[in-house]
Amino acid sequence: MNIAVRSDETNLIDTNGLSRSELMAILERARFYEDQNGLVPPRYLGRFVANLFFEPSTRTRFSFEVAEKRLGLEVLNVSEDTSSTVKGETLADTLKTLAAIGVEVAVIRHSQSGIAEEMAKQNNGVRLVNAGDGHNAHPTQALLDLYTLHKHFGDLNGLRVAIIGDLRHSRVARSNLWSLTTMGAEVVFSGPETMRAPDLEEHAPYLPIDEAIAQADAVMMLRVQLERHREQLFTTAEAYHQHYGLTLERFARMQDHAVILHPGPVNRDVELADELVEHPRSKVFEQMKNGVWVRMAVLERVLEGGKRG
Amino acid sequence: MNIAVRSDETNLIDTNGLSRSELMAILERARFYEDQNGLVPPRYLGRFVANLFFEPSTRTRFSFEVAEKRLGLEVLNVSEDTSSTVKGETLADTLKTLAAIGVEVAVIRHSQSGIAEEMAKQNNGVRLVNAGDGHNAHPTQALLDLYTLHKHFGDLNGLRVAIIGDLRHSRVARSNLWSLTTMGAEVVFSGPETMRAPDLEEHAPYLPIDEAIAQADAVMMLRVQLERHREQLFTTAEAYHQHYGLTLERFARMQDHAVILHPGPVNRDVELADELVEHPRSKVFEQMKNGVWVRMAVLERVLEGGKRG
Amino acid sequence: MNIAVRSDETNLIDTNGLSRSELMAILERARFYEDQNGLVPPRYLGRFVANLFFEPSTRTRFSFEVAEKRLGLEVLNVSEDTSSTVKGETLADTLKTLAAIGVEVAVIRHSQSGIAEEMAKQNNGVRLVNAGDGHNAHPTQALLDLYTLHKHFGDLNGLRVAIIGDLRHSRVARSNLWSLTTMGAEVVFSGPETMRAPDLEEHAPYLPIDEAIAQADAVMMLRVQLERHREQLFTTAEAYHQHYGLTLERFARMQDHAVILHPGPVNRDVELADELVEHPRSKVFEQMKNGVWVRMAVLERVLEGGKRG
Repeated sequence: MNIAVRSDETNLIDTNGLSRSELMAILERARFYEDQNGLVPPRYLGRFVANLFFEPSTRTRFSFEVAEKRLGLEVLNVSEDTSSTVKGETLADTLKTLAAIGVEVAVIRHSQSGIAEEMAKQNNGVRLVNAGDGHNAHPTQALLDLYTLHKHFGDLNGLRVAIIGDLRHSRVARSNLWSLTTMGAEVVFSGPETMRAPDLEEHAPYLPIDEAIAQADAVMMLRVQLERHREQLFTTAEAYHQHYGLTLERFARMQDHAVILHPGPVNRDVELADELVEHPRSKVFEQMKNGVWVRMAVLERVLEGGKRG
Repeated sequence: MNIAVRSDETNLIDTNGLSRSELMAILERARFYEDQNGLVPPRYLGRFVANLFFEPSTRTRFSFEVAEKRLGLEVLNVSEDTSSTVKGETLADTLKTLAAIGVEVAVIRHSQSGIAEEMAKQNNGVRLVNAGDGHNAHPTQALLDLYTLHKHFGDLNGLRVAIIGDLRHSRVARSNLWSLTTMGAEVVFSGPETMRAPDLEEHAPYLPIDEAIAQADAVMMLRVQLERHREQLFTTAEAYHQHYGLTLERFARMQDHAVILHPGPVNRDVELADELVEHPRSKVFEQMKNGVWVRMAVLERVLEGGKRG
Repeated sequence: MNIAVRSDETNLIDTNGLSRSELMAILERARFYEDQNGLVPPRYLGRFVANLFFEPSTRTRFSFEVAEKRLGLEVLNVSEDTSSTVKGETLADTLKTLAAIGVEVAVIRHSQSGIAEEMAKQNNGVRLVNAGDGHNAHPTQALLDLYTLHKHFGDLNGLRVAIIGDLRHSRVARSNLWSLTTMGAEVVFSGPETMRAPDLEEHAPYLPIDEAIAQADAVMMLRVQLERHREQLFTTAEAYHQHYGLTLERFARMQDHAVILHPGPVNRDVELADELVEHPRSKVFEQMKNGVWVRMAVLERVLEGGKRG
């Protein structure tokens, strides 16, 4: 895991290159957009962004698309089925094509870890926002989580965040680790033994789940790829819930002020007890709402980036 | 079949909860939009609608999309292949997500009968327009049929409408039954014995096809799902046409003033003789044109609904 | 091959019906749009175009979509998976439906040769732009190639253009032949023996590849459908490159002023040596850029066509 990758001003590849002041600047702009309820003059009229989602996603693509349209951007959408990738064109050439036809920003979701960084290094003429690459990074998710926590707790220094679940395959865990620790929060990990991630445990401790939950100010449950792991790793979704989920019993042992996060979509009664998804102390749908403000801030940052460079 | 479901002011689930005055209000607004040829000031700029089509459709989705854009709405489109439903997310959570990111209306087409009503009862934070759910309801189709008949005949009181075809699987027949009878029209049904629908025959008589056609002021032919039924129910499309289609011979026995309707897409020479699809007394393409005006009226009703509530 | 087909003023079906003055008019309008960098007042606000792509394409669809949106058009997109064609609706009825709901122009890509012409002859109520039909025609590609050559060379009279590759299956070769010869250029063909096209060789000579390249002012390499032909026609992509590709060796034997074209997407090291794709004498990405200006000009022509008729 290369943690030296920077999200320079014209790309957002991961959170690990963002300084505390850069993170704060994004949170402030997101707050500005939330204060306006997104109803801002469409400042980027006649400028083009392309959403390249090579993995299925409604939630993240729609969140980006709302953010883009609120900024006045013209939006092109492609999903894998209809893309030239079926003709063997490389992603790099697709990006050069987009640049040639006038697209300024590409938002990319792709199953291959590291592809967003690889594309950014090639400088294919279009600015990039990583919307999730394999197990590697999902920076706008981490930023909206950060925004949600910052709005709730204020100063994040010393805040204890437990990230629980399939660590090995989680781009959400990785990107959150970088941004949370940069802001001074204390991250701990938990989840199934078979899903531990040695690379992450170099940066934050792994604890038994009940210990992790008991001491946390915020419990972030990761989505389980049920369709991938059910057979191999545990017998049933119910068994996962009992062993590694936020059950009502575990929720009762959380600190009274502690909140619940989940990147969505939730497998109800797997990662979270059904009753907790919309509990007053759950941030699940507020996270989604905040995603629009954060993505507006990120798109603005990428579009304005490099002007003073 | 529950006919007590209401389309309250903020959702349109079926025609069966709409009073005569509500139906007339929709027809009047549709007429207004037709009179302007759809060229109205885009009053809903910066507001978002999502089209969730979980069954294939070009015609209905495009008709909605034109209506939405003429009203100035920002449009998000999803089809099943790229949606999070492949990850097991429930439709309810998808709707809550849409609400969270700022979508006000969702237009839903889904194969499951009753799902639109079920979603509306849950009140997931987004207003709903049912664009066809299983065999249950297709209210905007019924409303555009009503608009087409009202424009042609004026007062619908006593108008005799024959609805002919695969009644059992037809959401179009169901929604038309409710709106036509509310307006005072007299509905009769016909079609293959194997496709009769006992629930509908509680409300209107079933007649032999030649009798139904001879006495009708309007003959509404239903689409046959050729791909589903061909093997089991009749030997060939030609046989269906001869027994249950509007052949040239049957057309000759229609009343001179009677008109032809079909929700489209037409299987030419199956439900309708090819020559009749664009016959002067066919309303097939006028129905499609009217669909835009009616959907503008429906979207306006749903968006404006509840303001006085 | 019927070369009498005309692209009349309200459709663009192929280049073979366009006179020299019509071609020049399109090039001039494209130049106007390029001079404005596409930032023109959106003159077609509230008017609708539909992109019907029944074959996979990112490049061409996005190029059209950018052109359409720069002109202010409202855009509807359909790809085959979600279209009513799966329900057996004919393309003609789809076009009539589009006309009924207010769509003025349909941009069509389809695997069936001649379908665009067939649809145009039927006059289904919507103006047509052929974005590629089977092996037959791809007029906007030929026009952007013409624009690229005209911008580079000025007068095209006597310009020698070598078109090389899979001639038999190439709509790009066909449409370029008509427009280039109308402008006075001299076309020669080359490529594998098994991919020769007798119909094209009635209009321009077939030469051995090294001879064709040595005498050319412009070398246009055609895309190989690797997925289709690899097994039957040659053993490996490397073998194709050596025998029929623009290798570095062949490039060294080109005239010093000669340029390289390719419609994209390039199979690197198959049609073109990887190093040549972005060589200063390669026009590959400039072609894509020019595609937007040319498509703006074509859409304008089709939308304005017939006004004086």
